[in-house]
Amino acid sequence: MTFKIGLLGLGTVGGGTAEILLSPQGRNPLLREIEIYRVGGRSLERLQNHPLALSAALLTTDLEGIVTDPEIDIVVEAIGGIEPARSLLLKAIAHGKHIVTANKAVIARYGDEIFTAANQAGVYVALEASVGGGIPVIQPLKQALSVNRLSAVMGIVNGTTNYILTRMQAEKGKFADILADAQKLGYAEADPSTDVDGLDAADKIAILASLAFGGRIKLADVYCEGISQVDAADIAYAEKLGFNIKLLAIAQSCDPEANILSVRVHPTLVPHTHPLASVSGVYNAILIEGEPIGQVMFYGRGAGAGPTASAVVADILNIAATLKTQPAPALHPLLSCSHQHYSAIAPIADLVTRFYTRFLTQDLPGVIGKLGTCFGNHNVSIESIVQTGFQGELSEIVVVTHDVREGNFRQALDEIRTLNSVDSIPSVLRVL
Amino acid sequence: MTFKIGLLGLGTVGGGTAEILLSPQGRNPLLREIEIYRVGGRSLERLQNHPLALSAALLTTDLEGIVTDPEIDIVVEAIGGIEPARSLLLKAIAHGKHIVTANKAVIARYGDEIFTAANQAGVYVALEASVGGGIPVIQPLKQALSVNRLSAVMGIVNGTTNYILTRMQAEKGKFADILADAQKLGYAEADPSTDVDGLDAADKIAILASLAFGGRIKLADVYCEGISQVDAADIAYAEKLGFNIKLLAIAQSCDPEANILSVRVHPTLVPHTHPLASVSGVYNAILIEGEPIGQVMFYGRGAGAGPTASAVVADILNIAATLKTQPAPALHPLLSCSHQHYSAIAPIADLVTRFYTRFLTQDLPGVIGKLGTCFGNHNVSIESIVQTGFQGELSEIVVVTHDVREGNFRQALDEIRTLNSVDSIPSVLRVL
Repeated sequence: MTFKIGLLGLGTVGGGTAEILLSPQGRNPLLREIEIYRVGGRSLERLQNHPLALSAALLTTDLEGIVTDPEIDIVVEAIGGIEPARSLLLKAIAHGKHIVTANKAVIARYGDEIFTAANQAGVYVALEASVGGGIPVIQPLKQALSVNRLSAVMGIVNGTTNYILTRMQAEKGKFADILADAQKLGYAEADPSTDVDGLDAADKIAILASLAFGGRIKLADVYCEGISQVDAADIAYAEKLGFNIKLLAIAQSCDPEANILSVRVHPTLVPHTHPLASVSGVYNAILIEGEPIGQVMFYGRGAGAGPTASAVVADILNIAATLKTQPAPALHPLLSCSHQHYSAIAPIADLVTRFYTRFLTQDLPGVIGKLGTCFGNHNVSIESIVQTGFQGELSEIVVVTHDVREGNFRQALDEIRTLNSVDSIPSVLRVL
Repeated sequence: MTFKIGLLGLGTVGGGTAEILLSPQGRNPLLREIEIYRVGGRSLERLQNHPLALSAALLTTDLEGIVTDPEIDIVVEAIGGIEPARSLLLKAIAHGKHIVTANKAVIARYGDEIFTAANQAGVYVALEASVGGGIPVIQPLKQALSVNRLSAVMGIVNGTTNYILTRMQAEKGKFADILADAQKLGYAEADPSTDVDGLDAADKIAILASLAFGGRIKLADVYCEGISQVDAADIAYAEKLGFNIKLLAIAQSCDPEANILSVRVHPTLVPHTHPLASVSGVYNAILIEGEPIGQVMFYGRGAGAGPTASAVVADILNIAATLKTQPAPALHPLLSCSHQHYSAIAPIADLVTRFYTRFLTQDLPGVIGKLGTCFGNHNVSIESIVQTGFQGELSEIVVVTHDVREGNFRQALDEIRTLNSVDSIPSVLRVL
């Protein structure tokens, strides 16, 4: 029995996928039964000049022809972006193809449409490669970990921002300088906004939250803050206080009875003793908490041809193995998508968390007392207020709170901004 | 469709398993189709007095009756130990039951017999709980990671020894004192030899090596050294040199062409920057290296009722889901065991590794030269020789080598032992 693959795209992910499939020796023996049947891309010339030197008979620019080809069993979408990816996926599903995709953007935005169509057509949509590169995290969430009552999924899911933050900490460097260098070295895109503004991480946590908590997620409900406001001074103070600053993507169950979630992306002070604190450079890690398993964490390279292709081929293998023994139209319940409602997401004002805040104030007696009073007025309990030094004429004061409701905390900040003795509030960061 | 479970044993693992199955709300909906049909143990009184208060009709001391009961689909073996576990497993398989077990000892010793019988009978033997508690590592190895050419699997797979080593490092304490305290606190058994001598870790790495490299492993071929010889002084020196000492279980491919492996358990100096270095206390972690994925690591609690039961129930779920859609006798190729040969294991003398060694010598000029000459005679290349201090009249000298063949290194040590100026060699440890 041979399974025929239609591969859309021969860039980083598509090329890596083809490379694994073309060299099956030393890998799972089932890979010998998987055949690259068609490879589509925008430029025939680029396909023909690819270092893999694929047979010309496989190559085409007719992507529609691939997704409608009756010979093809599984369509691998590795072109990225929203369109034409979305339309091609839907057309492939309508033609009864199983789908493997690395496209977090299209799944996070159109997952509802795509999974509904797939369930109707009786086909699988596999997306291990969409989060965490080669790290197996989607499959464990759907299978092994699903016997737990999950309370949180959180992680470092964007390598570019973790690389920048790691270097800012190691070199005591400024965000703009390190970003520029990362762009030169190819670790950040020319237009870095998808990464540094947290949008890529938001796509990924929407997918993880949906799997962990069994409800679809509206991307617009995901609170998202990037790292461009993180200051070298805050990284230094955080380190003294026992924290590393990481861009965390977090999905938590706030109210399991009502199925209300908190789903958010923001720079976060992570205690040095926490397993996510030591994840550095381009590495990703996803931590999952549940009852009765406690905490488990998955760690590895979150991007790149090899890791991502490993996840794509793992999905192909999984679908092929399941089809091999179970050719009926009944879908394997642990591979298919079963939830169809949307989860309720709590507004960020309802979040309960600790905060780290840095103030610049006049160097006058009584300022710390005024800050404390404003926080008290809004029920914000303080763990520490420390005058850390001076910036020119101004005093620098760092405040760390206990767990407080974000809405209350923001009201306190609004009141503090009206104080004459307060110059500015350069940093507000959440603490894990 | 309901799947009937026969549960052997209601101790830590069996009790945890029953607890999950009896409270399916908030977990994978498929768990509602799984029924605890019989629970067997040695003492009926103890079964009856269990806090879960199971219906008396479920309880029995007739374990043979469970494994031969035609109503039962899946036998969960949670009694541990070699016999009667092995015989009960084989009888259950002969009666067409699928098996879920947490019993690393019986799988590491009788895996060949058990998997051969299971393949003949057309049943699954699932063993996620046998390594790393609740951490999903067996399934990723069989499925997602199997598309890679794996080169190494290594990890911290014994929580007791990691707890002891972590405390020795934090408190600068002696092995015997910390062990005694760990026994008082319930982190170590009254007879601690299975843990501290590395035997438990050896069972687990035999299982992981077998899955990663597709060949069965003779337990007698696994080289095994425990932690009782690790001295507080070595932990302190290692820390200064940039290492933590961990009991690592390691399986590496030495020669992929000839399928020759190195499989071993020993205390190891792990560089502070390595992801395994920061795994502390009772936590476990397993690192897997392959092409093209690179490194991935799985981290979590390696023992305890909750984590282990999570893995047991995940296996039950997986088998039930597969049976649900594929009731035919054809086994799912990614869940069944496909290899039947034994892997060749290289003798420890052929290992190529770095060494850390501590010598006590006379305080005479020329001793370091003599050590260097002996190492040179046997082709052992030295990275550093440092006189670290004194113990009474004797000089203490720490040597770190480059990568060397262990056989050569041992010959050099034999020659060094004949030197008059050398008093003793208190420590020989491998470096990752």
